[in-house]
Amino acid sequence: MASPACAAGGDARSSDALSIITDLTTDVGQRLGGTEREAAARDWAVARLKELGFANVRSEPFPITGWVRGEEKAAITAPVPQKLAVTALGYSGATPPQGVNGELVYFPTLDALKLAPDGSLRGKIAFVDHAMKAAQDGGGYGPFGEARRQGPTIAAAKGASALLIRSIGTDHTRSPHTGVTRIPPQGEPLPSGAVSSPDADLIARLAAKDKPLTASVTLTPRFTGQVMSGNVIAELPGRDPKLAPILVACHLDSWDLGQGAIDDASGCGIITAAALEASKSGQLARTIRVLWAGTEEMGGFGGQAYAKAHGAEPHAVVMESDTGADRVFRFLFRMAPQDKPLAERIGAELAKMGIYTGDGAPEGGEDVGYIAEKQKLAVIDLNQDMIRYFDWHHTPDDTLDKIDPAQLQQNVDAWAAVLKILGSYTGTINPAG
Amino acid sequence: MASPACAAGGDARSSDALSIITDLTTDVGQRLGGTEREAAARDWAVARLKELGFANVRSEPFPITGWVRGEEKAAITAPVPQKLAVTALGYSGATPPQGVNGELVYFPTLDALKLAPDGSLRGKIAFVDHAMKAAQDGGGYGPFGEARRQGPTIAAAKGASALLIRSIGTDHTRSPHTGVTRIPPQGEPLPSGAVSSPDADLIARLAAKDKPLTASVTLTPRFTGQVMSGNVIAELPGRDPKLAPILVACHLDSWDLGQGAIDDASGCGIITAAALEASKSGQLARTIRVLWAGTEEMGGFGGQAYAKAHGAEPHAVVMESDTGADRVFRFLFRMAPQDKPLAERIGAELAKMGIYTGDGAPEGGEDVGYIAEKQKLAVIDLNQDMIRYFDWHHTPDDTLDKIDPAQLQQNVDAWAAVLKILGSYTGTINPAG
Repeated sequence: MASPACAAGGDARSSDALSIITDLTTDVGQRLGGTEREAAARDWAVARLKELGFANVRSEPFPITGWVRGEEKAAITAPVPQKLAVTALGYSGATPPQGVNGELVYFPTLDALKLAPDGSLRGKIAFVDHAMKAAQDGGGYGPFGEARRQGPTIAAAKGASALLIRSIGTDHTRSPHTGVTRIPPQGEPLPSGAVSSPDADLIARLAAKDKPLTASVTLTPRFTGQVMSGNVIAELPGRDPKLAPILVACHLDSWDLGQGAIDDASGCGIITAAALEASKSGQLARTIRVLWAGTEEMGGFGGQAYAKAHGAEPHAVVMESDTGADRVFRFLFRMAPQDKPLAERIGAELAKMGIYTGDGAPEGGEDVGYIAEKQKLAVIDLNQDMIRYFDWHHTPDDTLDKIDPAQLQQNVDAWAAVLKILGSYTGTINPAG
Repeated sequence: MASPACAAGGDARSSDALSIITDLTTDVGQRLGGTEREAAARDWAVARLKELGFANVRSEPFPITGWVRGEEKAAITAPVPQKLAVTALGYSGATPPQGVNGELVYFPTLDALKLAPDGSLRGKIAFVDHAMKAAQDGGGYGPFGEARRQGPTIAAAKGASALLIRSIGTDHTRSPHTGVTRIPPQGEPLPSGAVSSPDADLIARLAAKDKPLTASVTLTPRFTGQVMSGNVIAELPGRDPKLAPILVACHLDSWDLGQGAIDDASGCGIITAAALEASKSGQLARTIRVLWAGTEEMGGFGGQAYAKAHGAEPHAVVMESDTGADRVFRFLFRMAPQDKPLAERIGAELAKMGIYTGDGAPEGGEDVGYIAEKQKLAVIDLNQDMIRYFDWHHTPDDTLDKIDPAQLQQNVDAWAAVLKILGSYTGTINPAG
């Protein structure tokens, strides 16, 4: 076959990461899982990947439980009327159309909420605060994010009529952060929203006054039943079909509040541009398979569907890009002991670019994690600088202007270097165990 | 009389600038001119200024044309559906409840809009872009702000059914910036809104595609007729009633989207804390009169009412704080030639704090400008660093967390130093001419 970069030929611009991100955010925009906009994004993705010279481009549909946003408003009603910037959490239940009103009970942490006696929040609105700070590796998101993931179920058990949380984020704007919650095993999910950081500050100040504190909350999202999402898959076929492919993934869906630029158009731009870059000087030995996963945000459904559909096929190694567009600073790997020399070759190449090899375990991610777990695959992480990431993650502020072209290019260069080494490697890459 | 700081005595905390700003934004919140919230702010202000030991504390009502925000939504409808973050400009007219739809015509500048033939925008929505960048002295706000002030009248003359502008600001968030427009001399004002900077970027990208570009806009603010606003005035009386007072001003009203922290609770905190600080070691010779003006945002009505009510009283010099809470970097003055030694004494004191004397003309501001013009008064500006100011000005993001306590304290110290020199000066301070 012709080199894909040559196939893309006449429109070289369309193959760079920034062009992919720009066009996806401009020509499609938000693409909430299971909606018409996500379907439009799949059509766009299939066309673009074909245009770029990828082979075996296809869309693989799968069903999910649909959910869409409704009206969203909240306010402090006493001791002083103040509007709150609020957004519903993913899979939140709905209040009545006229909303719920009641005492707003402040909990400084999720642990404090857990200690409230069952039934003690009957007719009340729970508020859960936290103190997440920005970190280069984004490490606070796991633990602090539990307020969002578990909070609704716990608050419901205490009898609350609604839950508000401080946005799981690190900014100081009035943009609240959405994100998925665990759907309870039975019963209606609790109406649950996040308020922005300045609003959470205000609630904390008012709660400290020991005056009656009341609020109103109206959130009317609705479940839309079983709807279709889908993965988009494409390949740059290798010279040797006996070599197991490299799987590189991003997710195509986004939350509905912004344009899904850093989460995760950037990941799709990075892996796709890097795959093309790695193949630029000639067809690689090993196939690179690109997965633009559907409905990652609402529960990793694209990654699960991929593992189900492709769990019997060989894979050599998996990589995922889903933490924005800032520079790669660290390389992590989980590989079989006999493949350590290959990992060291990659680490040496990345070191030339200022990227160090860390000693922690790679996380993989929602899009590659299920297949990696199923097949015990080798996993490589290229950790990106996430200091700014949780300022905009899951908010209306996830827009194209947040992409720094220079950092994005460093990212593509790092990915391309790794894919070139892996794609040229003709030995076996073993399960990591 | 007892020193006011001593009178404040038992509650020293309440006299510092940050406490004033914190309590005004927390216990009152937004305070749009002419509304119940501005009246609540006046009550709060009168009580606080009395508690702080000020004399002659009073509220001076005046009528204004009232206006309140309604529903606000806008979207690109073709070539791709994308929501726009929009807010109505002050004194904007209203669309029908169902909104207006039509071609969105892109103008890169206000000058480009001016060149459109009359009637050429019939049934269309005009969009005016601009390229304002952050500047330490905030100098871009005057010229670029004309898109907001003049834009509606010009777009109406071209036949447009609505106007959208890029927010007059320097941030990259989805928070649009409101701000006042000129009410046309006759006829209904045009429905006019600002979209956020990332939305303006999106419009510019789509406009460059040469595909049909259409939008829908729903803005339903309404005029509420004649309503009451008011100024709050208070004094720290000087020892010598024959010496003309120093007038220091901020504005108490705010736009309704945020908490009015940097615009202008901070100004009220700064001038009030500084007046108390300047008097801490003993009553000054000269009276300091504090003006917390009403309804500055919607047209400088508080400053006009002050000039009308107090235009026959003597004033020595005027100063205003209405550009946030960041550090003072420059001193500007307009004083009579024979008072230059006094200005030089002030400049020398400020130089010790790293503040230089500039050679431009002071601006004064909306709250002191009318009385200064009427009486040809001496004017002193303490210019604050405005690099961050237009990120949050007139947006939902104007919240308490934007105040940097260290910079705020430098500001109070600078103001206190100036007020101590002026308040101790027993010579005549002459009209500047």
